Amino acid sequence: MAYRVATLDKLIEQWERLPGIGHKSAVRLAFAVLAMPEEQGKAFVDAIVDARSNIKECAICCNLTDGEQCSVCSAPDRDTSVICVVEEPRDVLAFERTREFHGSYHVLHGTISPMDGIGPEQLRIKQLLTRIANEDVEEVIMATNPTVEGEATAMYISKLLKPFGVKVTRLAYGIPVGGDLEFADEVTLRRSLEGRSELL
Amino acid sequence: MAYRVATLDKLIEQWERLPGIGHKSAVRLAFAVLAMPEEQGKAFVDAIVDARSNIKECAICCNLTDGEQCSVCSAPDRDTSVICVVEEPRDVLAFERTREFHGSYHVLHGTISPMDGIGPEQLRIKQLLTRIANEDVEEVIMATNPTVEGEATAMYISKLLKPFGVKVTRLAYGIPVGGDLEFADEVTLRRSLEGRSELL
Repeated sequence: MAYRVATLDKLIEQWERLPGIGHKSAVRLAFAVLAMPEEQGKAFVDAIVDARSNIKECAICCNLTDGEQCSVCSAPDRDTSVICVVEEPRDVLAFERTREFHGSYHVLHGTISPMDGIGPEQLRIKQLLTRIANEDVEEVIMATNPTVEGEATAMYISKLLKPFGVKVTRLAYGIPVGGDLEFADEVTLRRSLEGRSELL
Repeated sequence: MAYRVATLDKLIEQWERLPGIGHKSAVRLAFAVLAMPEEQGKAFVDAIVDARSNIKECAICCNLTDGEQCSVCSAPDRDTSVICVVEEPRDVLAFERTREFHGSYHVLHGTISPMDGIGPEQLRIKQLLTRIANEDVEEVIMATNPTVEGEATAMYISKLLKPFGVKVTRLAYGIPVGGDLEFADEVTLRRSLEGRSELL
């Protein structure tokens, strides 16, 4: 009989269900979790359980928070007249790292994707419309991903926003800073040409 | 104020402590764990807690098991006259995948590494000597990693085994020097088993 530990197999199996984790990584991580000292093992499990039970969606922007409102929506120094619409909570983290954006966010929690059976009603679009109807919003920046689904979702929402008379913008396309022109794809290069600006 | 969720920061921090997981992977995995449906989230945490509390070392070979003896040591069809000595439990999984080895194992749980303050007494060497003194062992295959520490540990143990008159062999260099057994493919491992040589 080969070497089998049912409890271990189950653990490895659970790790394999995580995105981007193949079998070898799952084995490595399962053993790492087993080898953790008592205190670290407890801290790891507690962090997961705590986060899963305490983190919910912000009542305003639908971003993840452990309070009633997220720290952006409850901060007095953020500009609530500008809403940056993103697909996922991790996109908010990416924008916050730029330290450049001082407006508020709205997290859709996905994109419209008929292939995956995700329609507009599964996203937080209704909550966005409610905000725009009730708050004093001047600009909505559509910051969904530059993918087919992201573009379609941005177009869909911008049409819904038309009647509100609010300004709707889209993130600029172009070559990534620090990147190499040689490796840029045609579509990106074309977009960056179209969006070129004058050097002053 | 920037976007901060203390519970989420703590979760990301815990993920970053895992080997080979950088900040971006930690963020991705933390959000994946948060997004798990109720049932999957519970299964994931349960698998970790169960494994950590139930898995212990086999009374014979020191490999991980959730019983008293591991499934290799308690199997009637394994050849107990050959012991394959490995560093870590994951190395046993690698050998079992070759379906080529039908002997038993002995897991050292590390290598002698003075730099990290790990001496022979921290490894399961005493248990190996006890087995060889009491069981009818004909051959010990030193299957530690082809690293400086792995080689040194193999040499150290082979010297200890001299008085027992048991044949001590070493895996052939089919395994890439400086590599890690865990990542070796089945064919390479099989070749290195076939070409094993005696340590003199």
